[in-house]
Amino acid sequence: MKPKNSIVKNIFKELSFSEEELKLIESVFHKVNIKKGELLIHPGDVVDAMYYITNGCLRAFHIDSQGKEHTIQFGIKDWWMSDFTAFFSDEKAIMTVEAIEDSVIYRISTKDKEYLYTEIPKIDRFFRIKLERSFAAFQKRILAGISKTAKERYLDFINTYPDIEKHIKNYHIASFLGITTESLSRIRKELSNH
Amino acid sequence: MKPKNSIVKNIFKELSFSEEELKLIESVFHKVNIKKGELLIHPGDVVDAMYYITNGCLRAFHIDSQGKEHTIQFGIKDWWMSDFTAFFSDEKAIMTVEAIEDSVIYRISTKDKEYLYTEIPKIDRFFRIKLERSFAAFQKRILAGISKTAKERYLDFINTYPDIEKHIKNYHIASFLGITTESLSRIRKELSNH
Repeated sequence: MKPKNSIVKNIFKELSFSEEELKLIESVFHKVNIKKGELLIHPGDVVDAMYYITNGCLRAFHIDSQGKEHTIQFGIKDWWMSDFTAFFSDEKAIMTVEAIEDSVIYRISTKDKEYLYTEIPKIDRFFRIKLERSFAAFQKRILAGISKTAKERYLDFINTYPDIEKHIKNYHIASFLGITTESLSRIRKELSNH
Repeated sequence: MKPKNSIVKNIFKELSFSEEELKLIESVFHKVNIKKGELLIHPGDVVDAMYYITNGCLRAFHIDSQGKEHTIQFGIKDWWMSDFTAFFSDEKAIMTVEAIEDSVIYRISTKDKEYLYTEIPKIDRFFRIKLERSFAAFQKRILAGISKTAKERYLDFINTYPDIEKHIKNYHIASFLGITTESLSRIRKELSNH
């Protein structure tokens, strides 16, 4: 059967579950409201959860030794967020995750995630496939940083995150693209002149 | 029971399999000998396999628009190799994978991998966990490129790939670290003076 609960339905679109499985899944996701500007993860935190976003916008960034912010990921509706470098290893957070809008997210702990994987193997498979795509996308983005022009990277960005621009500040985008806000303005101007 | 076949044993160390599962696994891995200098994957190739290395050394690199090589990954004994950006998406290769030593590798096709995952779900789980670690390690390496000094990155490198230095050329290491061979020599000299 198809899941009734809308959260389960949103998260695991392609999958169908038994009543019992549905109950189990619903029991491990916990709704969290987070206000604009609040931090979900601080550097040094033990990261024992990941978050599914149903509404709003979050940003994961790393602060370098000069105090400069590097945006690793934005999270919008239907994306997963965490400090995955910490979540997937046994190390502490090296990123900050902040809400850049009031957001509604669903938390699942590491322990519950593992439990879910064991009880419902198709969920393990579901996340394995998601992770394969994320890994490929992240590697591709790094290679784009090497090979593509800032303009091409900006076009990739608005393609990956459609409609995100109205929610986030220019310096967020610039720090995601690895350019200055001045370069970002120049690129936008160039594109709007065409 | 523990796997008898040494290849299966090497690949899936922690797992045990039935006789039937063992036969299935053995049937989908195909031994390939590749000579030093030979290319396993060219940019533009359809990447429909990944490779387990039992011996030798391979390198995955990306050539930027200026013709400069960027080493993404080295593969040594017990590592997996492919152009994972292509393997995990439906796109063509953007990397070159070459043998930098005579190597012995085992090929498993995308199709057989999926078949194995379906027939033996604990293998799906095994690769999901491996992938989680690789994803974290790759993200961490990118952040290290932002935050750490070249010397710290070099120390990370020899920690990740112990004993690899005798097998590979200095410009391979430099292109992995994102520095010039001159900087690499300077770092080594500094470290040997301590």
